[in-house]
Amino acid sequence: MTDARPSIHALILAGGAGTRFWPASRSARPKQLLPLVSDDPLILETARRVLPLCGGYENVLVASGRHLVEATAAILPELPFHNLLVEPVPRNTAPAIGWAAARVARTDPDAVLMVLPSDHHIADVPGFQATLERAVASARAGAITTIGITPTHPETGYGYIEMGDAHAGGGLTVKRFVEKPHRALAEEFLATGRYLWNGGMFFFRARDMMDAIRAHQPALAAGLDAFDRAAAAGDELTEVLRTFPTLPSVSIDKGVMEHMSTLAVLPGDFGWSDIGSWQSAWELAAKDSVGNASPEGAVFIDSKNNQVVDLRNGGHGKHRVIALVGVHDLVVVETDDALLIVPRERSQDVKEIVDALRKRGDTHLV
Amino acid sequence: MTDARPSIHALILAGGAGTRFWPASRSARPKQLLPLVSDDPLILETARRVLPLCGGYENVLVASGRHLVEATAAILPELPFHNLLVEPVPRNTAPAIGWAAARVARTDPDAVLMVLPSDHHIADVPGFQATLERAVASARAGAITTIGITPTHPETGYGYIEMGDAHAGGGLTVKRFVEKPHRALAEEFLATGRYLWNGGMFFFRARDMMDAIRAHQPALAAGLDAFDRAAAAGDELTEVLRTFPTLPSVSIDKGVMEHMSTLAVLPGDFGWSDIGSWQSAWELAAKDSVGNASPEGAVFIDSKNNQVVDLRNGGHGKHRVIALVGVHDLVVVETDDALLIVPRERSQDVKEIVDALRKRGDTHLV
Repeated sequence: MTDARPSIHALILAGGAGTRFWPASRSARPKQLLPLVSDDPLILETARRVLPLCGGYENVLVASGRHLVEATAAILPELPFHNLLVEPVPRNTAPAIGWAAARVARTDPDAVLMVLPSDHHIADVPGFQATLERAVASARAGAITTIGITPTHPETGYGYIEMGDAHAGGGLTVKRFVEKPHRALAEEFLATGRYLWNGGMFFFRARDMMDAIRAHQPALAAGLDAFDRAAAAGDELTEVLRTFPTLPSVSIDKGVMEHMSTLAVLPGDFGWSDIGSWQSAWELAAKDSVGNASPEGAVFIDSKNNQVVDLRNGGHGKHRVIALVGVHDLVVVETDDALLIVPRERSQDVKEIVDALRKRGDTHLV
Repeated sequence: MTDARPSIHALILAGGAGTRFWPASRSARPKQLLPLVSDDPLILETARRVLPLCGGYENVLVASGRHLVEATAAILPELPFHNLLVEPVPRNTAPAIGWAAARVARTDPDAVLMVLPSDHHIADVPGFQATLERAVASARAGAITTIGITPTHPETGYGYIEMGDAHAGGGLTVKRFVEKPHRALAEEFLATGRYLWNGGMFFFRARDMMDAIRAHQPALAAGLDAFDRAAAAGDELTEVLRTFPTLPSVSIDKGVMEHMSTLAVLPGDFGWSDIGSWQSAWELAAKDSVGNASPEGAVFIDSKNNQVVDLRNGGHGKHRVIALVGVHDLVVVETDDALLIVPRERSQDVKEIVDALRKRGDTHLV
């Protein structure tokens, strides 16, 4: 390295799938590839948020599945092809994060790696970036660090992080990770002020993660060593194809973090959302004076609080007028091959459509 | 004529326009050109119903506007081009009917002409055809004859015909035509049993209509004489282009029928509907066990009494799945350039969309 300061890398985790946003989301076009809030896909917004810290796409890694590679690369044309960590099979987050750490450690073991989900929304980007900088500083000081989201309500759909005392590297120590709580417990967590939502963001020096994996996931460490040897011999990908499927399928939380006694956590309050439903997509979207979120040109007559999502032609070419009369709180989603109409409060039931389509053999639609 | 019996001709009135079925209906694709009940456009069903009486398309005339000619001809490929009576400008029904009567009278003044709207639905086709035969017989005996629809409810949207005593040619005499009544009057009409709905169907010998026009619409008669002279000289259409716009714009009801004292009327009860709204289109359409009318392949989850109309690709190529979850009594209409969602009970308000689109200059969408 010519720069005296170790470099900063980002690993964007983009292998996720799901049906909650059908027909917008598909197995081949999951949520992170969709423009759910702005006109840009969530993964592109994620990359843009971390670029000022990384210095450029050469320091951005994206872990994803084989069937998502083309679509992901198309959204991130400046990402070097080599920086796409293509998982031959899904193996949860620990192997992907381990691979990224090994990759970075080969040339710069002191480099800091920021691990970030690809499908979240951040309202306050400067506030987020300021928190990232603090997390990077903490990681640079040798602490595996996470950012916990300051909770706004007793959410039962997220894991929580209990904060402890001050940590040497800045921030606080992680006292424990907690699984998704039931309602009463979530209310208690919120009331104490000592719990944060686990947003899946981790910061560490490459060497520190390699040490942690060696200590707590020896099988994974052995696989990553094989990657290193193959990379030295000039053919990492053949080894990945062979060995990745044999790696333990485990999350970084369970496989590594929960075994560590010296984690640091920084509370973050920057308008975070994981956009878990059409309800939150509608809440985040720009709306007219009566609550309608829609592409330009839609006609609303006596209709309010509706969300119209038009993803035809890959979200371009919105040449068709969409007119709603006398309806409210509907979600209307158009794609090239599907139209969905559902009251927003029923939008979690779209999984029943996906089931029905699978049952009748229309797997190309799911 | 080689046949001793005078021939039977049909005139299908197909110049109508309207916005009640937007976006299915457009100025260039009005209701009669749409498959609102079955898979075939209403005008095609109309033509098929009269063909057994006419003997073939050579005896079918279709009156329509210039902007509808191509679409109409495409739906009726067997109709001889010469049988399309293209009105250069809209002039209501009397000039179109006069033109047809003059056309037929040139070769066969004793021929009977059946005048029928193009955009109605008939559930009982054999019953309808039996009534047509009686009306033709009445016309052949020299009576200008109409069929009145036996009313089923106190409708305020239609004109009524009061029946009088028995008519010499069969059926009953027409006592009077009545404009659309207010509600109390419509209820009175229904209670007396002496009133029928005016369904706009007329039957007459060509010579009788020419005489009636000469007596009550002399300006129209003069124009039709000019058509005859031009036709004899081999160029009727140039004369029509020049003279049609000068003809009086008047309905056959007001311009001719209401002046006649010897009209006959036959009550008809054959499941007639003018399909005046999405409500009646839904009532007539085939539905599943929970009241959903839709193209094949639509997915309904906990949804009932909805109507899905898919007119993309001219009603063909329904390659897109339409999924409704948790909604009821909606009308969903898809065309290549528009999507409408409206509760059926609000469907008359689509005219507000048409107004809004006109106002913002999107005249291509109306």
